[in-house]
Amino acid sequence: MTCLLRQIAAAVKHQIMMLSQLQSYIHRERLFDPAQRLLLAVSGGMDSVVLTHLCVAAGFNIGIAHCNFRLRGGESERDEQFVRRLAERYNVPFYLQQFDTAERAQAQKQSIQVAARELRYMWLEKIRQEEGYDHVATAHHMQDNVETLWMNISKGTGMAGLHGILPKQGKLVRPLLFATREEITAYANAHQLEHVEDSSNATDKYTRNFFRHRVLPLLEEAYPQVVKNTGAGIQRFREAEMLYQQAIAVHRRNLLEQRKQEYFIPVLKLKQAQPLQTILYELLKPFQCSAAQAAQVAELVDSEPGKWVATPTYRIVRDRKWLIITPLEPAASAHFVIEKGQETVQLPEAQLLLKTCDPAHISTDPHIAYIDKQQVQFPLLLRKWKQGDYFYPLGMDKKKKLSRFFIDQKLSLPEKEKIWVLESHKKIVWIAGMRIDNRFRITPGTREALKIELKNT
Amino acid sequence: MTCLLRQIAAAVKHQIMMLSQLQSYIHRERLFDPAQRLLLAVSGGMDSVVLTHLCVAAGFNIGIAHCNFRLRGGESERDEQFVRRLAERYNVPFYLQQFDTAERAQAQKQSIQVAARELRYMWLEKIRQEEGYDHVATAHHMQDNVETLWMNISKGTGMAGLHGILPKQGKLVRPLLFATREEITAYANAHQLEHVEDSSNATDKYTRNFFRHRVLPLLEEAYPQVVKNTGAGIQRFREAEMLYQQAIAVHRRNLLEQRKQEYFIPVLKLKQAQPLQTILYELLKPFQCSAAQAAQVAELVDSEPGKWVATPTYRIVRDRKWLIITPLEPAASAHFVIEKGQETVQLPEAQLLLKTCDPAHISTDPHIAYIDKQQVQFPLLLRKWKQGDYFYPLGMDKKKKLSRFFIDQKLSLPEKEKIWVLESHKKIVWIAGMRIDNRFRITPGTREALKIELKNT
Repeated sequence: MTCLLRQIAAAVKHQIMMLSQLQSYIHRERLFDPAQRLLLAVSGGMDSVVLTHLCVAAGFNIGIAHCNFRLRGGESERDEQFVRRLAERYNVPFYLQQFDTAERAQAQKQSIQVAARELRYMWLEKIRQEEGYDHVATAHHMQDNVETLWMNISKGTGMAGLHGILPKQGKLVRPLLFATREEITAYANAHQLEHVEDSSNATDKYTRNFFRHRVLPLLEEAYPQVVKNTGAGIQRFREAEMLYQQAIAVHRRNLLEQRKQEYFIPVLKLKQAQPLQTILYELLKPFQCSAAQAAQVAELVDSEPGKWVATPTYRIVRDRKWLIITPLEPAASAHFVIEKGQETVQLPEAQLLLKTCDPAHISTDPHIAYIDKQQVQFPLLLRKWKQGDYFYPLGMDKKKKLSRFFIDQKLSLPEKEKIWVLESHKKIVWIAGMRIDNRFRITPGTREALKIELKNT
Repeated sequence: MTCLLRQIAAAVKHQIMMLSQLQSYIHRERLFDPAQRLLLAVSGGMDSVVLTHLCVAAGFNIGIAHCNFRLRGGESERDEQFVRRLAERYNVPFYLQQFDTAERAQAQKQSIQVAARELRYMWLEKIRQEEGYDHVATAHHMQDNVETLWMNISKGTGMAGLHGILPKQGKLVRPLLFATREEITAYANAHQLEHVEDSSNATDKYTRNFFRHRVLPLLEEAYPQVVKNTGAGIQRFREAEMLYQQAIAVHRRNLLEQRKQEYFIPVLKLKQAQPLQTILYELLKPFQCSAAQAAQVAELVDSEPGKWVATPTYRIVRDRKWLIITPLEPAASAHFVIEKGQETVQLPEAQLLLKTCDPAHISTDPHIAYIDKQQVQFPLLLRKWKQGDYFYPLGMDKKKKLSRFFIDQKLSLPEKEKIWVLESHKKIVWIAGMRIDNRFRITPGTREALKIELKNT
């Protein structure tokens, strides 16, 4: 009897302590309002069982969601049954989804772990929306967070890898991050909470378990408080990251200037910005520029104009006074075939208009060309210029390389990349917007002219 | 013969590679100019022997300094002889100091490790100045740095603990931080460099060796590149810290206002600053405020006026609209004895002037008091007020506690702390600058008055 009383007293004490810590954590991190509806992701493991128990004790309005990844045969079915009964006991809604994880992983060429995680979060968010919950809550705790930090640092992280697992990401909240594994275990024991082996441990299984079972126990020999110390550090790093982002935002405002689809960074001003590497890395990240590429861009700053670094979607070019960030043209738009009689061609940022007319016209606007219609052979080809292209500039009987012509015209690399050329049977007719070819010029013998206009849209 | 040639080729290759890495690291981190004079701290261990070899190969102008801490008997003497011969072989100046480390540690109540480190850096700096060197260089390498980072995180660090060992601190440079232990070992082997057991390993011996020999090898099982990864991370954290400090500087300019010896932080504006905890921590650090105290100050923001947090040198008080940071008065200035006939008393921020005069005067300025000279007994005492003090305010025949009087006068805590009282034989004569005591007022029977003036300087 005394033993039972002692157990009850311990349970009450733990409940009061953990509940008050939970509530102050929710308040401090502004996770959610106690009146909101929470969809708990429950694997049936100790962490999620404790989270459920605490949420019920706190009087939160909850539902329980369980994913059966069908990866562990009968064990998966056992877990599903366990969580279903848990929801029944607490008399709260229960949502279940079974996945063909292995199949999905194969189809998407992902690891089982990545596939399981994606399926889980996608489905939880779907249920949240369909069933009208305000947030999805998972049972990640401090030790998960510390493991994540140590793994990130071992892999080689920057500032973003230091915040560990975030307490709040969009509609996802982790209200148990304040608690250590020991506190959760003590709570589960005090309340004699049944649970199953936590199948979510399958995520990052090898490395995470290596840190959990081998690295952290070793560190605890030197620093018994390593989990709490690192946990407190993560909190500070998260705040430090906010300040870091504030400083980056100031540099972005000062350095990055948008002009239509392009972005310009003034080189002289950039050279004075400190720390250059990290500022460039953060400024260029939205352009899919990797850390290694950002380091190459840092070298561009001290190099000759004309060099560039290409990301998967942008080209970053060293111009005389600027770094110019230009979107790569989609390959599909690189060629347009123009049939006889066709009057318009729609380009990504321009329109080409063709019209037969009287040969008496002369254009002073480089965007309008008049050529001898009889000299061209349809279909014409409109394409981007390429290395090796040459033409006979109007008024000259010697051929000239386009690359050379562009240098004389002092075109920057992004300007060059925008240039379209009109081709007739392998001969260049017009460098659109710039100069026609001498071979296609209007002569006294011209009977019919073709007016071609490049209109920027 | 082939074997010897192969050895020479390997040595040349290592030398070229390491030298170019060393030079680009010196350039990138702006450590020193190649023409400057370097004082190398050489223990005789592999790292410092390799650094010496590299500096000679690079043609730097060096001297060698060795500390004999006399902690390992004959081994200490052996190391000293080894380094002396090294300097002779390279024909560079040699500086030696022997320390009574154990004695110093005991006298300063320090650990042997801390005492050794302090003695070493103090002496190196002294030699640097006396002998006209531009910098002191130590042979710390990447693995030392990675160990430091992991130890700092395990202990629980903030942003400042992430930069690890700095490449440059004042006149101290660490040009070998770019190199891994493996690269240094390979270089030493290729050049068949003799060395002794590195006595500087005594620093932080237990914990550092624990990380070196147990934690890092374990981490390498999961991430073979952990040292290089973490080393690259440290570089990024160092840049991140610069951005962090830039953001802190902006908040400091916006929030901290100096008025003479006090600092004011507007509470409403502070409440909007994010992240509050870290901003407060950084703003208050110069006032010797610990992280725990900064957290208490964060609570002050939401509390009643009048509460405060005391650091060893400052008091941070919640006033109505401000947090006010006031230096604690040095205890020595808390009492002044005023002899008969003395005309001035110099206080920290004010002056007290005393003058006998005609009793016909009346003061409307609270900084000037006229009292009945015959009522006071010299010597008078000028002191800070204390809890329990009471007086009879002018015009009242009931005594009143000073604490109560100050509440009625709506004094803030820093204002209260500046209040001086003038005492005559245990009776309060004047609350300087505010109100005289009724018992010492000028009456029709007063024959001689004492004019007392509090002049702020």
